[in-house]
This record gives sequence, C-alpha cells and structure tokens, in this order.
Amino acid sequence: MNPAISCNSIMLALVAGYLAVGLGIPADAGARENPRPTYEFVTDEAFDAAIVPAYGGRHDAVYAQIDQDLERHIGELQRWVRQRSISAQDDGIREMAELVAGDLRQLGFGEVAIVETDGHPGVVGFLDAGAAKTLMVYMMYDVQPIEPNWRIEDPFAGDLVETELGTVLMARGATNQKGPQRAFLNAVEAILAVEGTLPVNLVVVAEGEEELGSTHFDQVLAPYLDRLRTADGAFFPMNLQTPDGSVSLNLGVKGIVYFELQARGGDWGGPRDAEIHGSFKSVVDAPALRLVNAIASMTTADGNTILIDGYYDALRGPTEDEQRLINGLALSGQFDQARARLGVARWIDGLEGRDAIVRHLFEPTLNINGMWSGYTGAGGKTILPHKATAKIDSRLPPGLEPEDVWAMFRAHLDAHGFEDIEMVQIEGRGYPAAASPVDSEIVQAAIGVFNKFGHTPVVSPWLAGSAPFYQFTRNLGLPFVFGGLGHGAGAHAPNEYMLIHPAEGVGAAGLAEVQKSYVDLLYALAE
Amino acid sequence: MNPAISCNSIMLALVAGYLAVGLGIPADAGARENPRPTYEFVTDEAFDAAIVPAYGGRHDAVYAQIDQDLERHIGELQRWVRQRSISAQDDGIREMAELVAGDLRQLGFGEVAIVETDGHPGVVGFLDAGAAKTLMVYMMYDVQPIEPNWRIEDPFAGDLVETELGTVLMARGATNQKGPQRAFLNAVEAILAVEGTLPVNLVVVAEGEEELGSTHFDQVLAPYLDRLRTADGAFFPMNLQTPDGSVSLNLGVKGIVYFELQARGGDWGGPRDAEIHGSFKSVVDAPALRLVNAIASMTTADGNTILIDGYYDALRGPTEDEQRLINGLALSGQFDQARARLGVARWIDGLEGRDAIVRHLFEPTLNINGMWSGYTGAGGKTILPHKATAKIDSRLPPGLEPEDVWAMFRAHLDAHGFEDIEMVQIEGRGYPAAASPVDSEIVQAAIGVFNKFGHTPVVSPWLAGSAPFYQFTRNLGLPFVFGGLGHGAGAHAPNEYMLIHPAEGVGAAGLAEVQKSYVDLLYALAE
Repeated sequence: MNPAISCNSIMLALVAGYLAVGLGIPADAGARENPRPTYEFVTDEAFDAAIVPAYGGRHDAVYAQIDQDLERHIGELQRWVRQRSISAQDDGIREMAELVAGDLRQLGFGEVAIVETDGHPGVVGFLDAGAAKTLMVYMMYDVQPIEPNWRIEDPFAGDLVETELGTVLMARGATNQKGPQRAFLNAVEAILAVEGTLPVNLVVVAEGEEELGSTHFDQVLAPYLDRLRTADGAFFPMNLQTPDGSVSLNLGVKGIVYFELQARGGDWGGPRDAEIHGSFKSVVDAPALRLVNAIASMTTADGNTILIDGYYDALRGPTEDEQRLINGLALSGQFDQARARLGVARWIDGLEGRDAIVRHLFEPTLNINGMWSGYTGAGGKTILPHKATAKIDSRLPPGLEPEDVWAMFRAHLDAHGFEDIEMVQIEGRGYPAAASPVDSEIVQAAIGVFNKFGHTPVVSPWLAGSAPFYQFTRNLGLPFVFGGLGHGAGAHAPNEYMLIHPAEGVGAAGLAEVQKSYVDLLYALAE
Repeated sequence: MNPAISCNSIMLALVAGYLAVGLGIPADAGARENPRPTYEFVTDEAFDAAIVPAYGGRHDAVYAQIDQDLERHIGELQRWVRQRSISAQDDGIREMAELVAGDLRQLGFGEVAIVETDGHPGVVGFLDAGAAKTLMVYMMYDVQPIEPNWRIEDPFAGDLVETELGTVLMARGATNQKGPQRAFLNAVEAILAVEGTLPVNLVVVAEGEEELGSTHFDQVLAPYLDRLRTADGAFFPMNLQTPDGSVSLNLGVKGIVYFELQARGGDWGGPRDAEIHGSFKSVVDAPALRLVNAIASMTTADGNTILIDGYYDALRGPTEDEQRLINGLALSGQFDQARARLGVARWIDGLEGRDAIVRHLFEPTLNINGMWSGYTGAGGKTILPHKATAKIDSRLPPGLEPEDVWAMFRAHLDAHGFEDIEMVQIEGRGYPAAASPVDSEIVQAAIGVFNKFGHTPVVSPWLAGSAPFYQFTRNLGLPFVFGGLGHGAGAHAPNEYMLIHPAEGVGAAGLAEVQKSYVDLLYALAE
C-alpha cells in the first residue's frame, strides 16, 4: 500500500503518452497504434502543505501516558500480528475478528458487533463520547498469504528485529495494516486513561476481506448506513513515512479488478482431461500457448500499453488542483526513492518526475500476479498441458468502472478468437477508485498535525494501490483520509515490517510519536 | 513414445498448409504471412507390409519355456519398475544402472560395464554367441517424474491392476520403457535356457538420460564406437500395438530441442530481487508480461504456426517412398483412435487423415511443457513477480538441426526486443531426427515376424516423439528398428501401464506372446 512518490524535475516536458525509449521497448512496438491519452498541464504551480497552519494543541498528560505504556503498547501490536488472519486461505479469520471486537469492548466502545457476511465477518464498534463530531475509522484485519524468501523463520512470530533503521516489528501485517491500526487504538486508550473521554465520537468499521477485494464490505456497512452517513469524516491509520521522515498524504485510491484467465482443452481442441505427450503438439492445440497469446494480444510487446478496445476512453486527466498536487509530489523527490527501495533500475520507458507520477496515478494497469501450467519441477518433462491459468489484475483510475472492465476483457477475448478462455471471478467484481478534496476538514486537520510534528506532508490525489474506499466517498459521502506518521515496508512481500524505535539519524517517527500524532488528530478534528 | 497414426480417407485433398477452419483459429490469424510449406503427393499408392513374407521358423521348446516361466517373467518386469529411476530428479539412477548391469551378467553377457559419463552412467554389455550376425539393442533405464492424478497410490509399487483391457502392470516405466525391455531380456533368457546359446551376438547399450535429452549418450558409446559400427543393425524393444492388435513400425524419430525461457528484472527494468506490490505495474516493467509477449511473438495467435524466421526453411517434404508409407498409415485408421485415447476432440485446424499425418511427422513444433511466475496459490495476491519461466521444446523433423534452432530462437528474441530473456540449457543441446530405410534387413525381419503373428504392421517413416537415434543411424551408420508387439499407454502421463494378460476380445499381445515374438526376431535376423 506504500506508494512513495517523487520526481527529478518539473522542467521535464510532460509526456504521459508512449515513449519508445530504451531496452524495455521491442523493435516493433511502435508499429501498433498508441491508444494512450496525453494530458497537458495548465499550471506549474506546486501545492505546498506548509500553508496549512500547524496544529497548536498540547496534550502533555496523554503523551506522558503513551511514553509510560510504550512497552505494553508494543505488546499490543505483537498480539495482533501473532494472530494469523490470511483471508485468501481462511486462516485465523474468525479468531482475528473476535480479537478486534474484544479489544474495542475493552477500550470502552459501548456497542460492538461482529457482522456476519456471505464471506468473512466484519467488526463494527461505536464509542459515543457525547462529542459534537464523529470520526469513522476504517480497519482491515486480514493479511496477505506468506510468500517465500522471508529472512525470519515465522512471519507470525511477531518478534522485534534490529535493522539499520532501528528496531522494527517484522511480521506479516506489521505495516499492512495491523501495526498502525493497533497504534491508533493505543492512542485512543491513552486519551481515555488520562481524560476519561474522547474529543470526538468514534465508529470503527473493520473488515476481513480487504486482501480479497472487499467483496462483502457492503454487507458490513449495510446495517449502519444511516448512522455512518452522519459522520464528519473517515480515517484509515497507515504508516506513510519514508525512512528519512518524509510523509505523504493520499486523498484516494485506484480501483481494481482481479480475476483468473483459464485456458483448457475442450470441444474446440486441446487435451480435455489430462496432459498428453508433448510430441502431439504437432496436431493438438495447446491451452498454454492460447493463454499466452490471449494475454499478449492485450498489450504491446513490452507489456506496458493496454490494447483492449476502449480501455483508455473513460479516463480523465488531472484537474488543475490535481496538477498542483502532482507538481508538489514531483518536487518532493519521493518517487525516485521508492524506485531504489523496490529494487527497480528504471521506470517504464525511462519515465521520470511528473511524467512518471501521471502514468502511475492516471493510467490503468494490466498485471500478471501469477501464472502456471504443466510441469514446473526440476529438469525436463515433455508434456502438452491440458490447462493454463493466469491471475490478472487491473488498477482503475477514476473514470474506469469495474463492470465496464469485465465487459471489455470479455469482448477483447471474444473478438480475438479466444472465446474458450474463461474469466473466473475469485475476488468479487472489484471496485472503482475513490478520492476526497484537499480542502475538506479531515484532510486539513491531518495536514495541520503533520505540520506540528515537523513533517509537512506531500499530498497526492490518490494512491496507485487499491482499497474499497469508494464505500466512504461514494456510498457514504464522507471525506476520507488514510495515512499517518510512521514507517513500514514489505506489504504483499517478504520481510514486512513496521519501525518501532528509529535508529539515530532516521527521520521517520517511532511508535510513541506515531501514537501521539493520532492523539492530536482526534483533537484537531474536534476543534 | 506411442504415437498411433490413422486417417479417415485419402480422398481428402492434401493441404499440409494452414487451414483457417474452426474455433482454434483466431480472427486475425490469417492476417499474418503463413510461413508453412505445402507438400504435393506424387502417388496415392499405399505401402502394404503384407507383401513381406511371414517369418516361417518355429521354436516350440523356447515358446514352452516362456509359458512355463511366465509368472517369474512378470516378476522380472515388476522388479524393474519398482526400482525408481527418475533421471530429472536423480532418484534411483545409480541403483537402476547396477540392476541392469547385474541382470546382463546373470543372463550370460560376458563383458558388462557401467560406463561413467558427465551425467548419469550408461550400461554396456556384450554377449558373444559366435554367430555371424550381431544385433545392437538400445535401452533407456530412466523414467519420467511423477505427475498428479494417478489412480494408484504409488506409481512405483509395480502392482498388477485389472482393467477393461485385461490385467496390466500399472507403474511409471511400465511401457516407457522398462516393460518391453525386460520382456526382451526374458526372451533372451528363454532361448539360452533351451538352446544354451543365441542365434545372433548381442550388444546391449543402455543409458540413464533419455528423458533428459540423452545429453551424454555419446560418452556411453565412445569407448565402443569401432565395435558397435560392425553390428548388422540396432533394435529398441517397444510396445507399439493398439488394444485392437494393430501394430505400427516406426523407422525413425524426430529430433528435439528443450530449454527454459527466463525473464527477470534487471538493468532494463522490472523488479530485480523480489516481487513488488502489483500497483507499481503502472511504472514498472513486468517480466511475466515480457515472457508472455516473447512466446506469443513466436507463433500465430492460435499457437500453432511458428513465426520464427527460417524455422520451416530447411524442411523437406515426404519422398515417394515416404508418401507410400503415409498413404498406408492413413488407410489404417490408427490416428483417429489415438485422438480419442488422448482425450482430444479435434486435431489442429480440424485436420484429418493424410493431412494430419503429414503435419504430425513433417513439421516442427513449439510447445510449452510448463510455465510459472509469481503467486500460484488460492485466492488473490497482488504482486508484480520479478521473474517468469517457461519450459519450451521443439520437435525437429529431418532437415532441422538443433544448433540452428538454438540460433533461430535467440535471433528471434533479439530481433523482437527481448534481448533480456535468457534461453537456459537444462537438457543439453538436443539432437536431430533419425530414420532408416524400409528395405533394410532388420526392418524386413521385424515385418516378417509381425506378419507371422497375424499383425501386419503399419509402417511409419518416423515417430513424432524424440529419441537420440541419430546416434545409431548417423553416428554408427546402422539401420535401426524400434517397436514390437505388446500394448501400453500413459508414457509421460498418469496411469502408465503395459498389458500383461489381455481380456477376451482384446487383440493386442500379452506378455508371453510379446516375448515369443522377440525370440522369433532374433532367429529371423540370423537367417
């Protein structure tokens, strides 16, 4: 979920279109028509979050409580990550939902419910502080499956690990998203311990299917829609600092569609029931070659421009406000830092700065998350496999609706002779993008708190990652912020961690400071 | 290794070229230039093996010995399949080589050696019967890895299983190739038991890397080249009967090249070290999409015509003799039977009869034996994988040389902008096709024996499968036959078996008759 955004120079000419530069581009890619839109900027002004006044409140007794309880607070994060909750494998889900509900009750939430759905359950809790304003807090309690190549033995052990950045909690879910969520609840606990009440009313809405595409999140919300719509804003706690302390604030997310493409033998040809000897490829159609050709037909040869009819038609370019945000992002330099951290030598087409940011935020993707067919062991086995599968996702900027995407993929397959290739739904039908305006109350409050801590945020129109935040912005009509101080990395990857005690010279906040900033956010919103 | 060949009607117009018929063909496939050669037939005459006189010898004492020892002979087959020997996984290889060498010594081979190579060892044994003629017998003692979906618990248990066809030995290696090879040695044993000597001298040359492309087979032959070149012919025992008793005799094989295509992130772009979050596809090149596009660029959209420059240039069409063989094959109807047995609804392009046979034998293939990238588990995981791999093989008709194929693949990748995709050798460099003339002594002897047993063979110019038989035909200059009575199926697939006791009404030979036919073959060759 951690994007990180930067740029070298806004002096670079903006070419969001197709740059046939460098090795990534095959020799004949230019021969195909380029369906990509290009967007002209009307301003080079950069949004500067420093113009928002720093939050001026001081809550020293609460901060002291946090310092006093820090070891126990770390233990609370460890307790959360030690409870497995892999939604894709239905591993520990029920137990984690009950753990969250129990924690809310213990904190003093007067109304707490585990909400059953057609999938994994949600958890909803209300804490009525008798305050004028109400904040809705979104949480996801599920995590990704475990991939190979972790350097610790057990990603659910929840141990602290010493690194160059300082002491980190290294575990599945450490930063995505249990760490910052429980840190937020630790902050709530500290305020209640000192003040006996909160400056705002809270509604926590947690789901256990975020990593599955939030298929049944609407069923979690449904019993509470009218009450939720009266909230003043919605918030999702998240570690969005880079190690040097730079922080970003993202006002939205892309949407997503995720499905499997499956090719298998049938009446059209190919082996129906099982793999056959590979020498029969001469006269037998190959599902694996059909799948490969079907996917290849959807992109230019470099895999980077989508050739599905209409895919770029409904997009829009950045508004003038968004252009200012992008110019600010480009000035911050964060995007290049992300590239190094990701182990990527160059962005697609050698893009840099503003160009790369526009490509990242305003264009859809077509990605292979995984694919498999036939024999994948050591050495050689000479077979013609009877089926082949690819897990495909597409990230959707504003304008591109999930149902339209399903239809365009299907139409493309049919039009190119791949009627037999199935699109198999495995994570619901996906969801569209979401974004909130920079001048909304919750956004301004968040920026004010960051400014107080000396970390003026870089503000992005949205993340290129996906989450079901359209539920807040579109369905509940609430302005929505996700972010916060704190640093973590490795979401959806090995060695996921959240920074707990920063080493000397590391600018990112440690757990105590993260929790104090959440305290301030609640007070800032109340003012 | 069992091809099975047939046809509906030689009245069909021969179109070995590209027939854009039916579902298998994408809408735009016709738009690309068709590089396939088309071959005109100059004769509709069909070769009929019945013109070869049936072998007239009778060896009743030896046949009786076989009947008497049959239970023990079955046990010898079981002993061979129970010894694991998966060459790709180096599982049981040394033990199997020693088992073969021990059996040869026990049978009376005076000179037996385990021949070390840079890979798995070979086994060479000489039995000097003081006869005028010498037969070289090729054997492979390795087997394929175990794939899923076997209906027996342990493919190495070597149990007899009752089926509709009768009692079969169901096991890895039962028909490919331990069953028929040990059956041949049982026949040798029976002759020696009755007669005390053999009608021909024997040289057995066994390798343990056939399923790996016979990479080091030349090292097995090297110490014996001069002696081997003085043999009168070479033979490879094989079950080539279909259940109804039809038998085919194949005078050669296609060659093969087998390698992995690997795409991974690097200086050109993409994630270098590990998978990253899938939302970065917007600005990060995807090795999986590059691999898919690279492979797709090598074929038409249906996966069936190879678009690599020069791939069809060095091929030749069937000679007039081969045309007669193909016409005979088409008359036999075996090829359609194979299609049903393989679980294939239609051949590529709806081909039938002579067209399908020419396509099968005279054109090269490009096949994906397996491929994998990223997350292949249940549900969804949103990642951009840093590498992707495909196991590719190509079957080579006469004219297409392995080194040229390697060069053409590399040139294609480079010319299409895929310089970063590696061709990784995993099974040596491959080998070319091999074929022997139908009028050679060993071929005529084999046909004569089949005719005696009432199973006039269908004779094919070669198999579409691959084996290193160029070592015999090209390097040793020996005419070479592989084949025999007996039925088996499931080579390189689940539920591999060899028929032992045919059920009532099944035409294929059981083990006793198979062994008697091997007895006759040795005598026929001596005459």
